Amino acid sequence: MTAFATRAAALAAAPTPVHPVSGPSLDLASLRAAYADGTLTPTAVVNLVYDRIEARGDDHVWIHLVPRAEALAAAAQLEAEGLQGRPLWGVPFSIKDCNDVVGLPTTNALPEGAYVAATTGQAVTRLFAAGALLVGKTNMDQFGIGLVGMRTPYGACSSVFGEEFISGGSSSGSGVSVAAGLVSFSIGNDAAGSGRVPAAFNNIVGIKPTPGLVSNACVSGGGCVKTIETLSVFALTVPDGMALLQLIAGYDASYPFSKPEADAVALDPETPPTAFRFGVPAGDALRFFGDAEAERLFAEAVARFEAMGGTAVPVDFAPFEETQKILYDGPWIAERALTLDPVLARHRDAIHPVTRQILEKSADFSAADTFRAIHRIAELKCAVRPVWDDVAFILVPTTPTIYRKAEIAADPIALNAKLGIYTNFVNLMGLCGIAVPAGFRADGLPLGVTLLAPGFAEARIAGHAANFHRATGLTLGATGAPQP
Amino acid sequence: MTAFATRAAALAAAPTPVHPVSGPSLDLASLRAAYADGTLTPTAVVNLVYDRIEARGDDHVWIHLVPRAEALAAAAQLEAEGLQGRPLWGVPFSIKDCNDVVGLPTTNALPEGAYVAATTGQAVTRLFAAGALLVGKTNMDQFGIGLVGMRTPYGACSSVFGEEFISGGSSSGSGVSVAAGLVSFSIGNDAAGSGRVPAAFNNIVGIKPTPGLVSNACVSGGGCVKTIETLSVFALTVPDGMALLQLIAGYDASYPFSKPEADAVALDPETPPTAFRFGVPAGDALRFFGDAEAERLFAEAVARFEAMGGTAVPVDFAPFEETQKILYDGPWIAERALTLDPVLARHRDAIHPVTRQILEKSADFSAADTFRAIHRIAELKCAVRPVWDDVAFILVPTTPTIYRKAEIAADPIALNAKLGIYTNFVNLMGLCGIAVPAGFRADGLPLGVTLLAPGFAEARIAGHAANFHRATGLTLGATGAPQP
Repeated sequence: MTAFATRAAALAAAPTPVHPVSGPSLDLASLRAAYADGTLTPTAVVNLVYDRIEARGDDHVWIHLVPRAEALAAAAQLEAEGLQGRPLWGVPFSIKDCNDVVGLPTTNALPEGAYVAATTGQAVTRLFAAGALLVGKTNMDQFGIGLVGMRTPYGACSSVFGEEFISGGSSSGSGVSVAAGLVSFSIGNDAAGSGRVPAAFNNIVGIKPTPGLVSNACVSGGGCVKTIETLSVFALTVPDGMALLQLIAGYDASYPFSKPEADAVALDPETPPTAFRFGVPAGDALRFFGDAEAERLFAEAVARFEAMGGTAVPVDFAPFEETQKILYDGPWIAERALTLDPVLARHRDAIHPVTRQILEKSADFSAADTFRAIHRIAELKCAVRPVWDDVAFILVPTTPTIYRKAEIAADPIALNAKLGIYTNFVNLMGLCGIAVPAGFRADGLPLGVTLLAPGFAEARIAGHAANFHRATGLTLGATGAPQP
Repeated sequence: MTAFATRAAALAAAPTPVHPVSGPSLDLASLRAAYADGTLTPTAVVNLVYDRIEARGDDHVWIHLVPRAEALAAAAQLEAEGLQGRPLWGVPFSIKDCNDVVGLPTTNALPEGAYVAATTGQAVTRLFAAGALLVGKTNMDQFGIGLVGMRTPYGACSSVFGEEFISGGSSSGSGVSVAAGLVSFSIGNDAAGSGRVPAAFNNIVGIKPTPGLVSNACVSGGGCVKTIETLSVFALTVPDGMALLQLIAGYDASYPFSKPEADAVALDPETPPTAFRFGVPAGDALRFFGDAEAERLFAEAVARFEAMGGTAVPVDFAPFEETQKILYDGPWIAERALTLDPVLARHRDAIHPVTRQILEKSADFSAADTFRAIHRIAELKCAVRPVWDDVAFILVPTTPTIYRKAEIAADPIALNAKLGIYTNFVNLMGLCGIAVPAGFRADGLPLGVTLLAPGFAEARIAGHAANFHRATGLTLGATGAPQP
């Protein structure tokens, strides 16, 4: 047994989750196989899902749960219609509450601002057309502002591996619903890391596409940070996530930030070459804020990629760090505030106090500040272009550490900022990223790593990410199920 | 003789320019032929050019004229070296003064801010490497702000066809230097129309590339409106302009707004199909502010394209008009001011009063205003995408009319705004454009039309523009020379 096989075996022994899950895995491969051989039916899956949801009790995952009876009716209809070649036939999914689904309430985690959605965007429409079964709309940091999952009046989700730990956010309920085996996948959103951080804290995969690859037309108000945000996919495996991305990606003439070239992007995961180079933040840029276990897990991830044929290349991380700070402290907060203006005007007092404090900074920024930031980001993107010519991807910790809810409550803004040091810059730089599980700390909490690459390089990093995840031997989320 | 041949004959009879030009034409085809058969030498061309410059007297074209002796020395060196396959061997050119050329002063039309440039950017370096001979740096609206050529302490250029009329700007001296036969081509810049308006007012061609196709690294401070501006080329013919564009286009890793895809853009003018559709502003959007001759010239241009196989398609111009107003009245003025901050701080009192008045508006705009404008432009770009799927290009008047200097002096800001209604929106929408001569008003002043297309479609519209220019039978600039 090699050293790596030993390590993989150790990693694969996932700690016991807060709510142990029994029964079949809902990953796409397993579910399709079970449907194909008649082991499961959509009706049985719906009942399984709702039994699991009920068993979890008040977990703060859902803002709107589709009633079991409605889900059963939808399952019965799918069964009556038959497969009809639909790739998501009977596949249960959840969606972050800021996304509109016609006929369902959208709250954006501000119940006072709730409305019943009149439209469903292109991406979500494609999911329904593919036969997916919606279970519900998930909890989130209000307006998608935050990486913690605590800035919500609907209660804070927990990591599936630690009740006192945060689930990550802003797509908190989405991440937990996948990890807990309540759905096969979830649609989240990501401007600053919301599609990646919950993946890290729940031992699942987060696909964060290049901005403009997937239409954001479903997002309330067209999105909060329109110039950079994107839908994201939480899934149990990389192949699942990429299969879903292939379904939802594409140009949407109704969405102004959709990119016309989206239809032409190849999304079949590429087989990685036997030898490749990958970037790792150089020197002091690799920060874990004292979390030695996070540091160990990242070092192991680097070693694992090296064992898979990779050569780690130290990358000057200063341009990424500077971009990260621009997102966090710069004028983009005004873009959030701009989109939220009508909501703020009507519901100022109802807004979460931390969120309100953040949004109030938006008036501090001028047009000159904005152009200065746009210029600087262009310079920084330009500065890092040679790196992308050299490496297949840059590997970063998805987060430097994980925090307890009590820690976040005591210092909500500063700790949230620390969580985003490896995620905040990604959309501003037009990159894509895939967050994959990296293993568990000694205390049983999971962490992840993220593979980053230039826009529209999803297929390239998907191959590397899938190989890595397989090599870890980790079970899926909190389900205990092996990788298919 | 068909009706069109008649009209072409009438158009070709250009009015007598202010300064009649005699001797050989400096268009590339004629000049190369004359070099090839020994009719001319670089030394002879330099002497011809400086004789013409001296004959014009104090025409306000030059901010820095290379001394004749230096130009003759450069010519002698080229002759000593021989051709060496250089495509611009012995080709005289001028460059708008805001562009740095190592060792020469850059003033940006603010003499108090003059500095000797330490670098020459990629595009201009390529011109020198191709054997081009620099004659001088040309007058301009200060900082490139204006479409009139009057906002400069170096005196206002005149249209080569009317001493009391404006030359157009901001690349005023560039346009005149080409039209007057002083150079074969000139490098200008274009954010709001500065690379097109002087072409219209001087019976020459203006190629305004897609932003990011040509490096702006030579522009003082990296450019004034970095997010949208571009170098431009003034030439006597469309093939000349495109040959020059092919030389200077390409990705520049040192310039943040250079686009990596620039190296892959095909720039050989395409042969137009025998039948094609082209857009024309629908309804009231076609405005000439009472200039019936401008209206006639545009109608004739439409008819000419129809005679060449085109079908004119009315295009809803509202999205373009709205974008035009956003550039003119919106937050982009803050981008100009931002870049100019250090200059403004040191030389506020020296700045042209009209320019100062414009720049002072910049503080009125917030970050929210900026993102609102960015969002709106994304929506408008999205709204017009179906138009681009339908037509080969949109044809617009380059300007709605031309003004006398006295008119501009009396109402400098409002009339400047009127001049830009067909140019201001182009870079904000990421389009490319080629301005070509359209003929002369009854009073002898020239006007032009511009073909617009989406980014990187230069080669497509170049074919149409060249065909059109040939079909007019117009002579070149003010030189009286026939098209080669």
